[in-house]
Amino acid sequence: MPPCDMCEDFTGPKRRLRSDWIADLAVSTAIVARNQTFRGYTILVYNRGHATELFELTAGELTAFMEDLARIARAIYETYGPNKMNYELLGNLVPHLHWHVIPRRPEDPVDLYHPVWGQDYEEVTLGDTAYHEIALEIREHLA
Amino acid sequence: MPPCDMCEDFTGPKRRLRSDWIADLAVSTAIVARNQTFRGYTILVYNRGHATELFELTAGELTAFMEDLARIARAIYETYGPNKMNYELLGNLVPHLHWHVIPRRPEDPVDLYHPVWGQDYEEVTLGDTAYHEIALEIREHLA
Repeated sequence: MPPCDMCEDFTGPKRRLRSDWIADLAVSTAIVARNQTFRGYTILVYNRGHATELFELTAGELTAFMEDLARIARAIYETYGPNKMNYELLGNLVPHLHWHVIPRRPEDPVDLYHPVWGQDYEEVTLGDTAYHEIALEIREHLA
Repeated sequence: MPPCDMCEDFTGPKRRLRSDWIADLAVSTAIVARNQTFRGYTILVYNRGHATELFELTAGELTAFMEDLARIARAIYETYGPNKMNYELLGNLVPHLHWHVIPRRPEDPVDLYHPVWGQDYEEVTLGDTAYHEIALEIREHLA
């Protein structure tokens, strides 16, 4: 097994020093996604060990992970007022459990009727200060 | 508000008569997805009323919905032995809460490193008998 990037980046104490760190929730860490074409796009990484499928978690871990997902999604929704949230756990590239939590708005470059994947648009990447600002905006809305 | 297709199709007793009906779980109904390019692709529809975001559910409803998701994903995984499962709640076209649960295999026409959306491949659709066979295959593996 190759080392897992997400284990290295998100299960140690250094995760809190990242400019894109939003918060540690019950069993996961929320960070601002690198691609901010969809402002508020967040990655929620399971931080209680390495797992790759939801059904590997115990009932208690699964419940906590899903409560974290609903909580961060609500915060993003309240921060940015999108039409709809998209919630996706894929792991095709990096199998460690992580959710893509993506606010969808009509003014963004992918129309509302398509998932964001495989569409032709330019990814927006930002500097550390801008990622930190987004992290703070979302953190303020975490109930 | 226009009528919701998923409420009409999946909250009444007729859902069990569909050829693509797999099972009713605690708070949701599993059906074989129309697109079977990814054999075993399943839609899991919340069937306890109309809701569009995970954070609209009570803690109990959310836990039950996520346990249903893990349970159907495990059944699909055990039936077809894919490399990875993809779990996606989008709702861009039909906002009623429903999961796309997609087994990903290297031999399928979209490579493992991309989500299935926005890729160039021909969708496989089947007849009623074939959908029913897949439903039975998955149902047999439901723990």
